Amino acid sequence: MNADTTTYERGQALSETVNPGMEQALAKRYDALVPGLSRMVVEVPYGTFYSRGVVDEKTRLLATVAALTAQGGQTKPQLKVNIASARAVGASREEICEIIYQMTLYGGFPAMINGMNTAIEVFEAEDSA
Amino acid sequence: MNADTTTYERGQALSETVNPGMEQALAKRYDALVPGLSRMVVEVPYGTFYSRGVVDEKTRLLATVAALTAQGGQTKPQLKVNIASARAVGASREEICEIIYQMTLYGGFPAMINGMNTAIEVFEAEDSA
Amino acid sequence: MNADTTTYERGQALSETVNPGMEQALAKRYDALVPGLSRMVVEVPYGTFYSRGVVDEKTRLLATVAALTAQGGQTKPQLKVNIASARAVGASREEICEIIYQMTLYGGFPAMINGMNTAIEVFEAEDSA
Amino acid sequence: MNADTTTYERGQALSETVNPGMEQALAKRYDALVPGLSRMVVEVPYGTFYSRGVVDEKTRLLATVAALTAQGGQTKPQLKVNIASARAVGASREEICEIIYQMTLYGGFPAMINGMNTAIEVFEAEDSA
Amino acid sequence: MNADTTTYERGQALSETVNPGMEQALAKRYDALVPGLSRMVVEVPYGTFYSRGVVDEKTRLLATVAALTAQGGQTKPQLKVNIASARAVGASREEICEIIYQMTLYGGFPAMINGMNTAIEVFEAEDSA
Amino acid sequence: MNADTTTYERGQALSETVNPGMEQALAKRYDALVPGLSRMVVEVPYGTFYSRGVVDEKTRLLATVAALTAQGGQTKPQLKVNIASARAVGASREEICEIIYQMTLYGGFPAMINGMNTAIEVFEAEDSA
Repeated sequence: MNADTTTYERGQALSETVNPGMEQALAKRYDALVPGLSRMVVEVPYGTFYSRGVVDEKTRLLATVAALTAQGGQTKPQLKVNIASARAVGASREEICEIIYQMTLYGGFPAMINGMNTAIEVFEAEDSA
Repeated sequence: MNADTTTYERGQALSETVNPGMEQALAKRYDALVPGLSRMVVEVPYGTFYSRGVVDEKTRLLATVAALTAQGGQTKPQLKVNIASARAVGASREEICEIIYQMTLYGGFPAMINGMNTAIEVFEAEDSA
Repeated sequence: MNADTTTYERGQALSETVNPGMEQALAKRYDALVPGLSRMVVEVPYGTFYSRGVVDEKTRLLATVAALTAQGGQTKPQLKVNIASARAVGASREEICEIIYQMTLYGGFPAMINGMNTAIEVFEAEDSA
Repeated sequence: MNADTTTYERGQALSETVNPGMEQALAKRYDALVPGLSRMVVEVPYGTFYSRGVVDEKTRLLATVAALTAQGGQTKPQLKVNIASARAVGASREEICEIIYQMTLYGGFPAMINGMNTAIEVFEAEDSA
Repeated sequence: MNADTTTYERGQALSETVNPGMEQALAKRYDALVPGLSRMVVEVPYGTFYSRGVVDEKTRLLATVAALTAQGGQTKPQLKVNIASARAVGASREEICEIIYQMTLYGGFPAMINGMNTAIEVFEAEDSA
Repeated sequence: MNADTTTYERGQALSETVNPGMEQALAKRYDALVPGLSRMVVEVPYGTFYSRGVVDEKTRLLATVAALTAQGGQTKPQLKVNIASARAVGASREEICEIIYQMTLYGGFPAMINGMNTAIEVFEAEDSA
């Protein structure tokens, strides 16, 4: 197995663990329009970035939640995914909301409130699951 | 001592520990133009947000580094301060750069490269100190 | 009464005047996740910023409408609140829309059109009230 | 006919060709609040910018799609219009999606996925027309 | 004189009053690369937007300062121009800084501090003039 | 040679053609802090995105110039690189500036002027080369 094969395989192993069926769903929706999009998502975010292991998953995901909150409401779909992932690796609701709350200082009040509302949507989905 | 007195005093205790002389420097530069600016910085970021203690300082600062990187080069002065603060509470250069690197996915390549260059400036200042 | 007590009390007096019930609503929705969030909103925006009195309320609110319009559609919920507040302190519909219109030059046409649509939503709610 | 008359007339000719009824629709919705808004849209984007002819329409529209994608989900209504316009001047679905896809590198993954979803909405409307 | 001629002439009259020599400077620097750029700046910002007169100049300029501050440090050259213009129509240093200060809530602390530093540069240039 | 090997090799072939020495320069500056950063830049932008060939290089680069201009002055280093690349694949100065000029409508006047100034820096470097 050469190094590049590993990128895809490592990405696939990770994406199937944390997000089963993602590659097939992306392929079905996007690959006719952008050939290779689903494979790229497996290789780049999952195989190249998420799987590096330099910082632990919880820290990496809380940092991502911070960034998406500061970028504002337009990243809401991705913020929901990353909040759910942070929950899955052991972040408490209070820790996630604290990180969102700290973003008041950098993204302003609208970004913080939008982030809190997105978190609450994720938690409500957990409670009704 | 009532709760509100504590806000200012708690902020002052924290800012004097991590950033000695900050309140006086802000007061000298800004308070004639905006009366109370220096006190507000002590009370709000330091007394109200940074001192909450719900997440540890290292996680809070890495999340801040993530957000400022994703917001792009215009927050460079503040990114430098927060990278230096993350170093001061024990984050390694590799951890800080890893968090900046992950922002490729959310802020794009220009934001990541600008963030890396800012981190290197902070590390070079450490090495020449 | 010391200076800090005044921050909270001043904020509460103002928020109860312009936005009655806000603190309780925030507390109910957010404080279990972020202890102190509702008090912070009373103390910081209301007690520390909105109540300074250096510029008149109408100018302060029109400037806020300008900024939120230029930041784009993601701040729509907050833009609605600030447009309604500007109306409450005497800004005409024409003045509010003029400020939004000027943002064509700084935020671009999409931001301006989104801002106009948000203003129209507020005015339609006034007309049906 | 002097040069300035031409600005409005040129804009009107172009807007009536690519977007028939636009000026009247804008006038009805916005001109009571902002006198002259509809005329400004005819004169500035259509009469002053779109009609310059230095680059061909397809290139100009693909560049616009790139910019609106990188600016994120908040420009979705305008992104839809420009995707439809790019289609009308001969851009294929694959070309439009390729340009959106390239924005992964500059606007990040959330911006790219939001852009793809917007494009799919436009294509679905074409298919059901 | 028809309505469109008035747009250019009105813009020119205003730009020569508040910014003498601007059109010639823009023409010299940019018009070989973008034919008509200088005329467009006269017609659109000056002739179409700044000269509408629906809100007074001071309010319009303070709103612009708010928006450019919230957009962050990348608009610094334009923020300087608009702060100087606000001064020229009678805004005090305290009023301008107050508007910048209020942006803490919407653009975050980095945007506010960057805005304050830009204002101080303008005031220092006034003092040394 | 399997498909993944091709990603790195394809990226290397392209980056060595358009940007000789880039991988080594990135490796020297960044790889001690972020192991694999230089390889990722070769594999992802060059091997995965730039080399897809669905749209021609000139269109792809003009679209990138549009996006970086609309994102504002903070992406100036990357805007310079992409303007130079657009020149290298045959875009005229007038075409590049036209695309920047069109961004007035989406990114606002400050973004357009900043983009024009960046383009002029690239052209002056060409003239003095």
